[in-house]
Amino acid sequence: MAELDDLTADYAKAGFSGALPFGRRPAVLVVDVVRAYLDPASPLHAPVDDAVAAAAALVAAARGAAVPVLFTRVLYQPGGADGGLFYRKVPALACFDEGSPFGGFPADPAPRPGEVIITKQYASAFCGTSLAATLAAGGTDTVLICGLTTSGCVRASAVDALQYGFAPFVVADACGDRDPRPHQANLFDLQAKYAEVITLDDALHRIAAV
Amino acid sequence: MAELDDLTADYAKAGFSGALPFGRRPAVLVVDVVRAYLDPASPLHAPVDDAVAAAAALVAAARGAAVPVLFTRVLYQPGGADGGLFYRKVPALACFDEGSPFGGFPADPAPRPGEVIITKQYASAFCGTSLAATLAAGGTDTVLICGLTTSGCVRASAVDALQYGFAPFVVADACGDRDPRPHQANLFDLQAKYAEVITLDDALHRIAAV
Amino acid sequence: MAELDDLTADYAKAGFSGALPFGRRPAVLVVDVVRAYLDPASPLHAPVDDAVAAAAALVAAARGAAVPVLFTRVLYQPGGADGGLFYRKVPALACFDEGSPFGGFPADPAPRPGEVIITKQYASAFCGTSLAATLAAGGTDTVLICGLTTSGCVRASAVDALQYGFAPFVVADACGDRDPRPHQANLFDLQAKYAEVITLDDALHRIAAV
Amino acid sequence: MAELDDLTADYAKAGFSGALPFGRRPAVLVVDVVRAYLDPASPLHAPVDDAVAAAAALVAAARGAAVPVLFTRVLYQPGGADGGLFYRKVPALACFDEGSPFGGFPADPAPRPGEVIITKQYASAFCGTSLAATLAAGGTDTVLICGLTTSGCVRASAVDALQYGFAPFVVADACGDRDPRPHQANLFDLQAKYAEVITLDDALHRIAAV
Repeated sequence: MAELDDLTADYAKAGFSGALPFGRRPAVLVVDVVRAYLDPASPLHAPVDDAVAAAAALVAAARGAAVPVLFTRVLYQPGGADGGLFYRKVPALACFDEGSPFGGFPADPAPRPGEVIITKQYASAFCGTSLAATLAAGGTDTVLICGLTTSGCVRASAVDALQYGFAPFVVADACGDRDPRPHQANLFDLQAKYAEVITLDDALHRIAAV
Repeated sequence: MAELDDLTADYAKAGFSGALPFGRRPAVLVVDVVRAYLDPASPLHAPVDDAVAAAAALVAAARGAAVPVLFTRVLYQPGGADGGLFYRKVPALACFDEGSPFGGFPADPAPRPGEVIITKQYASAFCGTSLAATLAAGGTDTVLICGLTTSGCVRASAVDALQYGFAPFVVADACGDRDPRPHQANLFDLQAKYAEVITLDDALHRIAAV
Repeated sequence: MAELDDLTADYAKAGFSGALPFGRRPAVLVVDVVRAYLDPASPLHAPVDDAVAAAAALVAAARGAAVPVLFTRVLYQPGGADGGLFYRKVPALACFDEGSPFGGFPADPAPRPGEVIITKQYASAFCGTSLAATLAAGGTDTVLICGLTTSGCVRASAVDALQYGFAPFVVADACGDRDPRPHQANLFDLQAKYAEVITLDDALHRIAAV
Repeated sequence: MAELDDLTADYAKAGFSGALPFGRRPAVLVVDVVRAYLDPASPLHAPVDDAVAAAAALVAAARGAAVPVLFTRVLYQPGGADGGLFYRKVPALACFDEGSPFGGFPADPAPRPGEVIITKQYASAFCGTSLAATLAAGGTDTVLICGLTTSGCVRASAVDALQYGFAPFVVADACGDRDPRPHQANLFDLQAKYAEVITLDDALHRIAAV
């Protein structure tokens, strides 16, 4: 976020922006890369093609290095009986009613047999799901996070990753949003307080070194 | 966020920005209004005097209307043994080590006997605390949120309020931050996806009508 | 638990066994009433026909009084990638792999359109699910709990109901188990520390009075 | 539980009682070993001296092997404003009001500087606390559990350890209760479905081998 450059120094001086360790047992978490954001007919359609391509590259590298890959999606019972206040706040979430084509995964990245799919009703991949238990039981210490959207489910998931004890590494160019401003503003907050924001290149190097 | 005015229409058209109901059993949640942000000697000192004064007015009105008030604070064992990755990411959190003067409440607002104090180690007031249980057991349906800082613990707490089933109403002028840009950017995200962002005047009217 | 009669007085004297209030917004939670326990071909088959019939009566009464009914079931990805340590501890849980006939609901009780189905991977209906958020968002204050099995998912769900702020009323004769001893031992613990254990008759009267 | 010997075979045949792995990064969790259970003047006083001595031996061995030790205690604001329904269900919990002598640790085992103390309001050490985050951030995979009481906070904590992804090993002779019947009944359930129930000798051997 160019217009926040001056803040970076201010934050660093105040004692934000420490560095999280990249652990020895990373996993890749692909947040909500689903058709609702890719299909021009969807109300949630957003300019995220580049981010999705980067997410696919991240997933391919992880598979090649035997790094686990986990996917999230959103799913509601028709009408949102299990959607609580989030379904009421964001009417567009009806896109994710059971049976809607918008809830499905695209061709790439898409989960393969044996890869975990987390079905969620809220923004955070950890909230109301067994993701934290799956990560802890699997010995995961670090989560490379990509997906959609930066200011929504990606940020909520990255903040919770930290709060649940898993070091979040957010792959900036593999995250997308409706508009560059919330994208950048949220990456700024994440780097300052909750996560390491890295490039796809950096992520690929780290995966290759596992 | 003036520079995001164009986004508001875009988001509304996409199906964000629905309205949450203001319930019949509200509570006020005062997030981290502690000396660390108010004392010029603290690394976390920020220009939040106006926000704190507004929070004090909100608390006074709530007490007058018998609306419960709950306070959060941050506390770590010396050295951060219970601080996990958050304590490592944000070195300034050492301000909240047990025994530090920065962790205390200011003169106003400050908890009175019988008011709940939530002691937390992470950003969200709900994460790793019994807040959700206290709210549910008390029949609370709506949380008026104020405090510090907007881009940090306020946002994390508001997102979680929604995710735990309590309608968050964020009182904009009773929230403060280091800089107006993250403050505004986060209020924009909150209003779009997670909460109702309201003014102090609006909050006072709602409390008077309980 | 006849052999624990002497303990009841001891516990009461020690300050256990207080009474929880039956609220004004109850819901019925039907825990894991699925074919795995009813089909003689299943490794988990148990003598629970009477309990299931009582659960069906409870559900019918709730529907007649417009009291919400929520159902839980267990579901794993084939091989248990999302089952963590529970799937490893209890090999019989493979009954609940996606596609297994044992995971389905019987004819009665069975969810109707619009009734919430909680899909879980662990014992507690609250653990790794959005149940607490759904109950809080719906204003529920009390949960009438029935289902299978008393010493497993029923107890875990009842303890968590209390821990999340919803008063658990466990309907004893609508809960079943493999053997009467763990059934009784767990009802004893629940009544002593976590819940009100009531009869089906009592539950039906309470529902009729809502 | 001698009278449940026949059930052990029945459960094993049904597919319960699988074995959890003892990991490479264990920690010891000492649940609620506080004066309320040890002081004859306390309503919660119970015959747990042998269990507490065994817990002290377990803690000493862990420290000798550099295995982390974490302690839990219960604490409420005076009157229980933060105690929710649990405080209402169990009036004896007023023993743990802030300022009560019953909430303190005995001479041995007692936390040393740098050892984590989890302050909780509910039965499970994981519920409403940051314990899971601390364990995950520390890379813990296995939790050796001891303390008070078996049918209450020990069981609730062991079930949650499994549900959060940390293998629970319950040290039977380092757990105590008011009466041997609930003690045995709960150890039976734990071994069948949630944990490995082991002896102190076994635990000491495992710690020595870390």
